[in-house]
Amino acid sequence: MARINEHYAKLPASYLFPEIGRRVRAYAAAHPDAKVIRLGIGDVTEPLAPAIVAAMHEAVDELGKRETFRGYGPEQGYDFLVEAIRQHDYAARGVEIAADEIFVSDGSKCDSGNVQEIFALAARVAVTDPVYPVYVDSNVMAGRTGAVGPDGRYEGLVYLVGTEANGFQPEPPAERVDVVYLCSPNNPTGTVATREQLERWVAWARANDAVILFDAAYEAYISDPSLPHSIYEIPGARECAIELRSFSKRAGFTGVRCAFMVVPKTVTGSAPDGTRVSLNALWSRRHTTKFNGASYVVQRGAAAAYSPEGLAQTTAQVAFYMENARLLREGLTAAGFTVYGGVHAPYIWLRTQGGLSSWDFFDRLLADAQVVGTPGSGFGPAGEGFFRLSGFNSRENIEEAIARIRRVFG
Amino acid sequence: MARINEHYAKLPASYLFPEIGRRVRAYAAAHPDAKVIRLGIGDVTEPLAPAIVAAMHEAVDELGKRETFRGYGPEQGYDFLVEAIRQHDYAARGVEIAADEIFVSDGSKCDSGNVQEIFALAARVAVTDPVYPVYVDSNVMAGRTGAVGPDGRYEGLVYLVGTEANGFQPEPPAERVDVVYLCSPNNPTGTVATREQLERWVAWARANDAVILFDAAYEAYISDPSLPHSIYEIPGARECAIELRSFSKRAGFTGVRCAFMVVPKTVTGSAPDGTRVSLNALWSRRHTTKFNGASYVVQRGAAAAYSPEGLAQTTAQVAFYMENARLLREGLTAAGFTVYGGVHAPYIWLRTQGGLSSWDFFDRLLADAQVVGTPGSGFGPAGEGFFRLSGFNSRENIEEAIARIRRVFG
Repeated sequence: MARINEHYAKLPASYLFPEIGRRVRAYAAAHPDAKVIRLGIGDVTEPLAPAIVAAMHEAVDELGKRETFRGYGPEQGYDFLVEAIRQHDYAARGVEIAADEIFVSDGSKCDSGNVQEIFALAARVAVTDPVYPVYVDSNVMAGRTGAVGPDGRYEGLVYLVGTEANGFQPEPPAERVDVVYLCSPNNPTGTVATREQLERWVAWARANDAVILFDAAYEAYISDPSLPHSIYEIPGARECAIELRSFSKRAGFTGVRCAFMVVPKTVTGSAPDGTRVSLNALWSRRHTTKFNGASYVVQRGAAAAYSPEGLAQTTAQVAFYMENARLLREGLTAAGFTVYGGVHAPYIWLRTQGGLSSWDFFDRLLADAQVVGTPGSGFGPAGEGFFRLSGFNSRENIEEAIARIRRVFG
Repeated sequence: MARINEHYAKLPASYLFPEIGRRVRAYAAAHPDAKVIRLGIGDVTEPLAPAIVAAMHEAVDELGKRETFRGYGPEQGYDFLVEAIRQHDYAARGVEIAADEIFVSDGSKCDSGNVQEIFALAARVAVTDPVYPVYVDSNVMAGRTGAVGPDGRYEGLVYLVGTEANGFQPEPPAERVDVVYLCSPNNPTGTVATREQLERWVAWARANDAVILFDAAYEAYISDPSLPHSIYEIPGARECAIELRSFSKRAGFTGVRCAFMVVPKTVTGSAPDGTRVSLNALWSRRHTTKFNGASYVVQRGAAAAYSPEGLAQTTAQVAFYMENARLLREGLTAAGFTVYGGVHAPYIWLRTQGGLSSWDFFDRLLADAQVVGTPGSGFGPAGEGFFRLSGFNSRENIEEAIARIRRVFG
């Protein structure tokens, strides 16, 4: 018999976003005239920047001519993109990252789902709660956890609970873990780690020989110049952290698909015989064996996001979304909600009113205001009673959504 | 300590193609004037077809306008592409495949590396030998094998040896296996499975409750209309086979990146308690959790390969490469080589002369003829003493390569 991976059975029946899609489709089918405003999945809405469009056209033309055609590229990404990343994202902030420490990919969802493969099955994994579900699900699928308990937690995973009291920035765990996933600016809570908080994480990781998987997909949304964009701005992080970055939210690439992961050669893990092994070598092997490079056209588009025009245009897009986030934040506050985030991230994290569960609030917001958000409980047990809204939409829709919410809840 | 995946240490230091790249770069650096002809990695050389270029331009423009911008798409692929696949690749050949049995991805290397995840770690895996290295390496990395032995074989993997005597089409194994990887038209041997051979495989899989992972990345190169292009042309295959397809070689997408996998809902595996589980549900979960869809621009390009113009243009490209393969096949035969393949696949598989090892032949061919090929031993122990050349190059380079080989070996 073909024996299947039995760990998949531990997962709930439906991944968060497909379930949201199902409920929205059902509502729209029953109410064909309703104008539903989607602030749920956190998908960008502004068109690609002109500089990116031009670069992608040029790349398509190159592929259409024999003299400039390119087939397989380097799995780790083309030099033109790796160099732009190195200089603009790192050297410009005083961080030295070598070209062979950067791995271009087709998206952070893949990177954050795949990175666990280079750790032992026995590795103990910590996640914050609430958290981006891919971190948890990919470890469940790999078999690093037991069953989910009545409290919604998987046996064997370490949960670091974000609360209103700790500003959704939990402290490092007291118990031993091998790996921790951190996300700052945070999805879903919209909060951001300060330099001091990151320093505590790096100190903890080094003292405990743990690895930090630092997801900085939203770093472009940081508005306070004193906050770190990269964990490598913290001394010692090159010895203990892997960083994930994406073009999805900073350049509108959710449908174009490009991201990268930084794996410094100085980060090591431990083999069963105690030998120290470079995680860069492991990830390089994983990346070159199971991935064949991001599309050339896409990489040219991503590189154009670093050109002077591309940078100006994408920065303006980020500012546009952040103004949406500000309006949401203020409108929801005026409607009586307690809200977090929205200052260094496009996400607003709100406490539901009247003790509604996250999914009940989802259904009520959809039915009464025709606004789609994301139930906080979809991000983990500690998200129950909270709800995520995103600033990714037109100004008109954001204003209309705020007006509706104020009518219903205000 | 951060415990690492210890199985990576079982892999040889270098993946086949990076090692080839390394030797070629070293040779080119030492001989800057040499005109090296690359028939190694099997990468296409013709530019993208005009219909595909036009469709990609249109898609880039769509993403550049607010009204037509698209962000996250369905992880499984857009309907326009899934429908084109369903109709042209399957319905047109009398095979019924449902839309939700097709999973569009960014490449067959990813699909063939990732598909093992839905099987148990205890699953026993069979591969043909020689074989595309990703099938083996991804299972080693997952921990399904022991160490590699002095014979070059991993403990725990079942090797089905392709020989000149069996035409490089080994029979199904006598021992119990859960999963077998088959590739037809075959990479690296260039041979193709007949309908009768595939019927034996399907009968064996059904009798033994095994799953066939059928890699048909080269089906567009089949020249005999009586040969099956899809394993689903064999009755019963819908109950036991997953099929992998790619746009890389049929539409010049090696740098553009698009492929798909077909997982019929009727293929099941066995859970530890004996329950039958749909592999379609497992793969759907894997695909939606760890992948975020192929680039919209790329999917539009892939769909254009099915338009009347796109089909005519890409068919002409395939015919061009196959004429190259014919010239190689005849030229090598005239030079005294025993050759296989090259009739239903772009690959020529040749026996080295004088009992040279595959890598010695590689070095000699590079040094004496400045032609790069792929050592057969890189595809497994049974490939030792053989060598792969591809028809992917300009006519001029193919003719020049043949002339040089005839001068050196003829």
